[in-house]
Amino acid sequence: MSLIVHKYGGTSMGSTERIKNVAKRVAKWSRAGYQMVVVPSAMSGETNRLLGLAKELSPASQGQGTLRELDMLASTGEQVSSALLAIALQAEGLEAVSYAGWQVAIKTNSAFTKARIESIDDARVRADLAQGKVVIITGFQGVDEQNNITTLGRGGSDTSAVAVAAALKASECLIYTDVDGVYTTDPRVVPEAKRLHTVSFEEMLEMASMGSKVLQIRSVEFAGKYKVPLRVLSSFTPWDIDLTEEASSGTLISFEEDEKMEQAIVSGIAFNRDEAKISVLGVPDKPGIAFQILGAVANANIEVDMIIQNVSKDGKTDFSFTVNRGEHAKTIELLKSKVLPELGASEVVGDTKICKVSIVGIGMRSHVGVASKMFKTLSDEGINIQMISTSEIKTSVVIDEKYMELAVRALHKTFDLDQDKA
Amino acid sequence: MSLIVHKYGGTSMGSTERIKNVAKRVAKWSRAGYQMVVVPSAMSGETNRLLGLAKELSPASQGQGTLRELDMLASTGEQVSSALLAIALQAEGLEAVSYAGWQVAIKTNSAFTKARIESIDDARVRADLAQGKVVIITGFQGVDEQNNITTLGRGGSDTSAVAVAAALKASECLIYTDVDGVYTTDPRVVPEAKRLHTVSFEEMLEMASMGSKVLQIRSVEFAGKYKVPLRVLSSFTPWDIDLTEEASSGTLISFEEDEKMEQAIVSGIAFNRDEAKISVLGVPDKPGIAFQILGAVANANIEVDMIIQNVSKDGKTDFSFTVNRGEHAKTIELLKSKVLPELGASEVVGDTKICKVSIVGIGMRSHVGVASKMFKTLSDEGINIQMISTSEIKTSVVIDEKYMELAVRALHKTFDLDQDKA
Repeated sequence: MSLIVHKYGGTSMGSTERIKNVAKRVAKWSRAGYQMVVVPSAMSGETNRLLGLAKELSPASQGQGTLRELDMLASTGEQVSSALLAIALQAEGLEAVSYAGWQVAIKTNSAFTKARIESIDDARVRADLAQGKVVIITGFQGVDEQNNITTLGRGGSDTSAVAVAAALKASECLIYTDVDGVYTTDPRVVPEAKRLHTVSFEEMLEMASMGSKVLQIRSVEFAGKYKVPLRVLSSFTPWDIDLTEEASSGTLISFEEDEKMEQAIVSGIAFNRDEAKISVLGVPDKPGIAFQILGAVANANIEVDMIIQNVSKDGKTDFSFTVNRGEHAKTIELLKSKVLPELGASEVVGDTKICKVSIVGIGMRSHVGVASKMFKTLSDEGINIQMISTSEIKTSVVIDEKYMELAVRALHKTFDLDQDKA
Repeated sequence: MSLIVHKYGGTSMGSTERIKNVAKRVAKWSRAGYQMVVVPSAMSGETNRLLGLAKELSPASQGQGTLRELDMLASTGEQVSSALLAIALQAEGLEAVSYAGWQVAIKTNSAFTKARIESIDDARVRADLAQGKVVIITGFQGVDEQNNITTLGRGGSDTSAVAVAAALKASECLIYTDVDGVYTTDPRVVPEAKRLHTVSFEEMLEMASMGSKVLQIRSVEFAGKYKVPLRVLSSFTPWDIDLTEEASSGTLISFEEDEKMEQAIVSGIAFNRDEAKISVLGVPDKPGIAFQILGAVANANIEVDMIIQNVSKDGKTDFSFTVNRGEHAKTIELLKSKVLPELGASEVVGDTKICKVSIVGIGMRSHVGVASKMFKTLSDEGINIQMISTSEIKTSVVIDEKYMELAVRALHKTFDLDQDKA
């Protein structure tokens, strides 16, 4: 019988009542004959509670040693929820066993608080599955070469689940969450937004990175790399709904190109207002400029999203990029004090009141004029475009944040996303 | 410089404020040049909170699988407090690192929820100490041969600390607790009770087993086996008191026989009212009787303390023993239904309103008449003795529980325990 991985988020594991429901759902799958591996997050609020205690003891970071201890601390949250789920499953009459990351072992590098999975040893899990046990593996954590506990960063349980599914060659990895799938855009902005039955891996990557916070982006990358079929579905359906119905609900993130043939050109509209725009004006247009500016920014550990450099005029060019809104002031300060004097650039300007809106779709590859249709729509609405950046399956624009909802709604309509697909 | 192990109980680790105080105290020792290893318990209330969650999920025990998960669950409490203490020490400017039991590794057998330590690998800890780091090791837990997490049972952190001290050949193991030492008897019963500056290992064993709940009895056994000097002292003294003063405070549990030469005959009066008495009357006096009765009791997992069989009369004897008061009814029921019919004994009677009072002292070995002095004292107070049991360093009596305080006070006075010792 096929092997299935279930992942449950912190909300689904948020109380003993909810853990009982998870146990009943997993038991249903197990009794239907599936080999079951479950990856739970910590009970909601627990990770914040633990990190809050650490903050009280050490308001400022104390470097690498402290990061190591934060991982020792935070990893207990998933160990607790995993053991509780095992106990709940045993109370349901199933054989169940829980493992911490180090017990499996999920080997990672030593980048505490944001480690990356390097390998998973599946021998112990396979032996348990062969004996008919449900295996629970703590999300979010692993162990490095020196047997230090590591964590994968916020949302890392998604990545754990996908990595476990890849290692065990699971037929599907089901991510149970508090939304019932991936939508054409945020239904809070566009009430007509539709749930996508399937979405391609590449589209999902663009959606995830744009703040459609359904899945952690690394988990999608992982799923892509190892071709793990991934399904996002709701943990709030009653546990006893028909298994066949449940197994086809939500959104399937698919790796089969041919399934996309009939798909719409644009699959969804993504957006975020977490970014700020920074422009360095009057930069002498010579080799090494981009590195001089962005190298300094990267060295200060500031993450950059869009980067745009336009053609030069009179040997000078303007260089723009976006950073997280919270790092805007720090970035401006850094550029003014360190970069501008060396560059001989004339000015740095920034704007925090912007948003980024993107159309995403595999279909764009083979359809011309998609971007221009987007620009026309915005123009019809009187929305000025400040920056544009494109990739094979995404076109993004930066606009004044006050037009965000208007832009998203208009684009959603333009690309026929309001219409039900067969 | 010498190596010292500190153990802090749940109350001492009960809040971030208290953890900061522990960190300051440990830092003081470290800065004075000691190599420091610290074993903390879980923050007070945490273990109960975790086990409470498990109880909500599975009111009835589900066997070995559930015991394994309870250890996965409960062991997180010490991992949290250990990581927090490391962070607090780092904030104090020290290098500190925390290890879970499996990381050291503290190897145990597989008796989940009540495992026993089999070995400790000290290589990693020694390497850290050589680098000047403070090493924190989770109390209460270890790992079995199959890499399952185990716990040592309630109070197991004391045992962890002593085992770590033994493995590292520490010069002393300091158990910081909410009392300031071992007393001649409970000061709540006898206000004149005095703190003992030193107590022998064997006396401490008898005290610990009698409900002077200062130390877990297994930790004292461990200390005796490996000759680890053990000191019980208060964690409520200000952290910045003079180190020399702190180092000689509390009660030292000593293994040097010659230090005892000048000691009093009786060191302390122990007592408890947790037991109940059971007598099987009119038992045919033939070989195998004790086994027939106690074998059945042991098979039902009921722990027996005192056992008394008197000489027979007319080929019949009476057989008495004490069990935990909570198991009294169960034991009576068991004897009536299973044992009596087979034995041909005439009757089972029990009494829950009893207490046990003991005088404890190494000095009793070489002094005759100590027991009779005890019996005379009780007789003078009009207290009837129901059972007597003796060992080389202890004489215990069972009496009506209403006389407990009276008996303890009278004995405390008879053996001159009210007097200050030099």
